[in-house]
Amino acid sequence: MPHLTIEHSANLADKSDLDALCKRLRDVMLETGVFPYGGIRVRCVSCAHVAIADDHPDNAFAALLIRMGAGRSDDTKHEAGAAIMAAAEAHFAPLLADGYFMLSLDIVENNPALSWKTNTVHARLKQESAA
Amino acid sequence: MPHLTIEHSANLADKSDLDALCKRLRDVMLETGVFPYGGIRVRCVSCAHVAIADDHPDNAFAALLIRMGAGRSDDTKHEAGAAIMAAAEAHFAPLLADGYFMLSLDIVENNPALSWKTNTVHARLKQESAA
Amino acid sequence: MPHLTIEHSANLADKSDLDALCKRLRDVMLETGVFPYGGIRVRCVSCAHVAIADDHPDNAFAALLIRMGAGRSDDTKHEAGAAIMAAAEAHFAPLLADGYFMLSLDIVENNPALSWKTNTVHARLKQESAA
Repeated sequence: MPHLTIEHSANLADKSDLDALCKRLRDVMLETGVFPYGGIRVRCVSCAHVAIADDHPDNAFAALLIRMGAGRSDDTKHEAGAAIMAAAEAHFAPLLADGYFMLSLDIVENNPALSWKTNTVHARLKQESAA
Repeated sequence: MPHLTIEHSANLADKSDLDALCKRLRDVMLETGVFPYGGIRVRCVSCAHVAIADDHPDNAFAALLIRMGAGRSDDTKHEAGAAIMAAAEAHFAPLLADGYFMLSLDIVENNPALSWKTNTVHARLKQESAA
Repeated sequence: MPHLTIEHSANLADKSDLDALCKRLRDVMLETGVFPYGGIRVRCVSCAHVAIADDHPDNAFAALLIRMGAGRSDDTKHEAGAAIMAAAEAHFAPLLADGYFMLSLDIVENNPALSWKTNTVHARLKQESAA
């Protein structure tokens, strides 16, 4: 049940291909082997009203937050996070070449005692791959 | 001070009545007896850019996150969460009948030492019910 | 790497200047001395679909959530939060005079073992202040 939410300043949509970002990070999450394919949900949340550091009009940010199921080791989570961050840095390389961009990633684990999920994609993917 | 935020893929607005969802979950939160009426804030956050599992165009998700005040027992929180999840499953029953939907609910507790609130609705409701 | 996200009901944009709110809270975060200038990211997330308490059409909310780096003392975090909440209350004083508004602030610390950041604003600001 991995969730990756990317909060970003609205101006980022003019500077970067956000659909490509979502798909690339989905692919990397899959490649880590940590996250089940049928549960990956990457999405962007655009923020129209912002105040970023010195308010330079070129200032932009992308704040990635992964919310994942409990049970993986710290090493596993750290490796997965590092791979996702590296992919985000590669995607945003043109922006990171200038002095106006803030990229971050944080991982939060769900409390398994207070977590529910109903997912019909897993079964469909399994059926399709068996067909 | 219960918060329920529902992040969802933008396409869910075409598949489901999101105002009805908010109202239904607000009602269920009230019915649990756990959450004070005047503090319930249910809201949806629509995500236009997404990558969900295999990118099937029908893929959609609703990710519910409750942020609540500390102090309830684990049992109380679990019962409340189960009731809210059951109501969400009922609302989304048509989508759960197919292989393209991911529904989830997580509960997070606030740290009471780092939590502030100023709410003018409680007093108004009390006044109105006394009138 | 402080993040301040303000989820709010969409109707708040008609009742309050959200750009001014973001800038004011950015300034207060800076004044606390707790948050590095070049890392401050304040943003609003507007929520079109909501259910707030009794559904009175004037009901509105602003839910502030700070996500900050680990390492400050509890006292320091509490003082910073209290200052930010006071500034938010001052900004929203007209709304707090009536019975239709919910304001809240919560602070969450990042897990330093699962936190990454790449920020090109710090270096630019340093360079500019040295020029």
